[in-house]
Amino acid sequence: SRSYRIAVLSGDGIGPEVMTEALRVLDAVETKFGFTTTREERFVGGAAIDATGHPLPPETIASCEASDGILFGSVGGPKWESLPPDIQPERGALLPLRKHFGLFANLRPGVCLPSLTHASPVKNELIPNGFDVLCVRELTGGVYFGQPKGREERDGEPVAFDTMIYRQSEIDRILRVAFTAAMGRGKRLVSVDKANVLATSVLWRETAVQVAKDFPEVELSHLYVDNAAMQLVRRPDSFDVLVTENLFGDILSDEMAMISGSLGMLPSASLGKQKDGGLYFGMYEPSGGSAPDIAGKGIANPIAQILSTAMLLRFSLGENDAAAAIEAAVAKAIDEGFRTGDIATGAAGETKVGTVAMADAIL
Amino acid sequence: SRSYRIAVLSGDGIGPEVMTEALRVLDAVETKFGFTTTREERFVGGAAIDATGHPLPPETIASCEASDGILFGSVGGPKWESLPPDIQPERGALLPLRKHFGLFANLRPGVCLPSLTHASPVKNELIPNGFDVLCVRELTGGVYFGQPKGREERDGEPVAFDTMIYRQSEIDRILRVAFTAAMGRGKRLVSVDKANVLATSVLWRETAVQVAKDFPEVELSHLYVDNAAMQLVRRPDSFDVLVTENLFGDILSDEMAMISGSLGMLPSASLGKQKDGGLYFGMYEPSGGSAPDIAGKGIANPIAQILSTAMLLRFSLGENDAAAAIEAAVAKAIDEGFRTGDIATGAAGETKVGTVAMADAIL
Ligand SMILES: CC(C)[C@H](C(=O)O)[C@@H](O)C(=O)O
Ligand SMILES: CC(C)[C@H](C(=O)O)[C@@H](O)C(=O)O
Repeated sequence: SRSYRIAVLSGDGIGPEVMTEALRVLDAVETKFGFTTTREERFVGGAAIDATGHPLPPETIASCEASDGILFGSVGGPKWESLPPDIQPERGALLPLRKHFGLFANLRPGVCLPSLTHASPVKNELIPNGFDVLCVRELTGGVYFGQPKGREERDGEPVAFDTMIYRQSEIDRILRVAFTAAMGRGKRLVSVDKANVLATSVLWRETAVQVAKDFPEVELSHLYVDNAAMQLVRRPDSFDVLVTENLFGDILSDEMAMISGSLGMLPSASLGKQKDGGLYFGMYEPSGGSAPDIAGKGIANPIAQILSTAMLLRFSLGENDAAAAIEAAVAKAIDEGFRTGDIATGAAGETKVGTVAMADAIL
Repeated sequence: SRSYRIAVLSGDGIGPEVMTEALRVLDAVETKFGFTTTREERFVGGAAIDATGHPLPPETIASCEASDGILFGSVGGPKWESLPPDIQPERGALLPLRKHFGLFANLRPGVCLPSLTHASPVKNELIPNGFDVLCVRELTGGVYFGQPKGREERDGEPVAFDTMIYRQSEIDRILRVAFTAAMGRGKRLVSVDKANVLATSVLWRETAVQVAKDFPEVELSHLYVDNAAMQLVRRPDSFDVLVTENLFGDILSDEMAMISGSLGMLPSASLGKQKDGGLYFGMYEPSGGSAPDIAGKGIANPIAQILSTAMLLRFSLGENDAAAAIEAAVAKAIDEGFRTGDIATGAAGETKVGTVAMADAIL
């Protein structure tokens, strides 16, 4: 029977408890769809710092290398906040993982279901049918890794600098991911840049126009990043797919996630190059953080972790039916009124549940 | 009697019509408070391109140089959108003006009056009392002007690059503007950076901690820019003063303006070095754009331009009583129910007015 290896990095905060539920859901689809997974649980983030002194120990990387994909929880918390930035749980684990595995394509759905518009901070009349945006963020280029980056003394004072840099091939490949995604959805792509100020954005825009020729059915438009930050607030439902560079994607995808109102329901995928057969090596994680304030209370919404598992099944394992079954089960649980605290209103027809009971409903 | 020179650059779209109203209000406070202004109206933006071929002609710069401050309308429109970026109305006028006059401190109030929360895209229950944030954006540094910036061929493909760079003294001076502003308000300052990724942000954060020692009464906190983009959506009323670098400020101040729901009411000031006597040379302009879709219809909200005039009076002319009188008159007109279309709901007690009638109400 079909068999896969998964690296399971639960991390900190609510990571372990929502991961437990996601793995129960994975068990269920394995039985139902007839495949098996070998799971290696490894330390990452603050838990790894406590155990080994480093947020991303070599054993963890080795385990990921031997796997078909990484199921990631979340990392970080007050305990490790005063460490120097590059060994903090988030930065010290996420950036090296992205770089090491060449995970250049970050897919972040920003979904507000029609039945959950009350949870969005945006007025319901602006999003009568909710919205469903896919944000495609370039994840291994731009100002994150560009050299030179650092500090020196000039004219007797410290000067610090970062380099935002893109090769055209880096822009081309992320745009192709976005155009391809748009083809499978509403066929509308908004490319976000700052071409009135940045040389990298001028190249970005030119490349978008070129790549568009290979996707004549997709309607391409361009927005400056400041304008995009505004439009996401006022008319999130006007977007289908949005594609942008690393730093802009960091800001806009978080803004969009907050606007959706249900951070606890949003998964994400970070993909490397497509392999023969169409699958990707990838890392899958909730869009929200480790939420240390509610960790251990059994109230966290497990849906983001469960939907991240569905993305792993689809993009890295090719178990599309299992992925679709999970997504359908999540939609049904919401339809039937099951609500964790983050999305509950107390309205009639709702059943307020904790982490485990939400997973039970989905199961 | 006291006399000043003002450069008046109305620009495009709704610029001229709201400027006309702002100048009527200026006439009124001149009479009332006993001072005079000499106004030189000059071309800028698309209007300047049409008249002279350049968005910022030398005569316009000369007129600004001879003035105590610049009252700016808005620039841009579909007519000039296909020009190369650096001679487009917005970029080609704004960036050179900022650079030429060293306007490093951009003050952008993001105000949602308690009586206008319905106009905000954010649910009223999240902002029961509206909000009042001051965004302080560094305006002449960072990735906007950093060198090298450009493009070259490497390994047979185009590569583009921008440089984000800050000298400590540039960070220090904008932080002092922000801390000083905070002292005159709620004494809470949020400094926004991306210190987990950017070397410039590490220097920014260190400098903020240092400058804070000179302002012991101000409570300083730090947010990463992605988190700030989220918090502005969900709890804009938790902010007092926010300070950040150029690119982050571009994105966040626009996001905040959209969240306030009344872009047509938000002024801005871009200030240079403080002069002896405490005044600044500065440029004052509405936060919103030229709104070509409603230009010439007499329906644009003139308040942003009128409040920009008040900021000019306060920061560049030292006519504080006149500034305060304008601000009070605007508040009163709103209290009395006068509403242009952008902020009207049709509720009882509202009088829907156009551009001229709104200025009449304020007068
Ligand atoms: C932790 C940080 C370096 C990271 C980023 O900026 O990419 C995070 O904000 C994210 O979006 O995954
Ligand atoms: C026109 C553009 C260059 C400018 C900027 O990015 O600063 C504008 O967006 C602004 O905020 O004034």
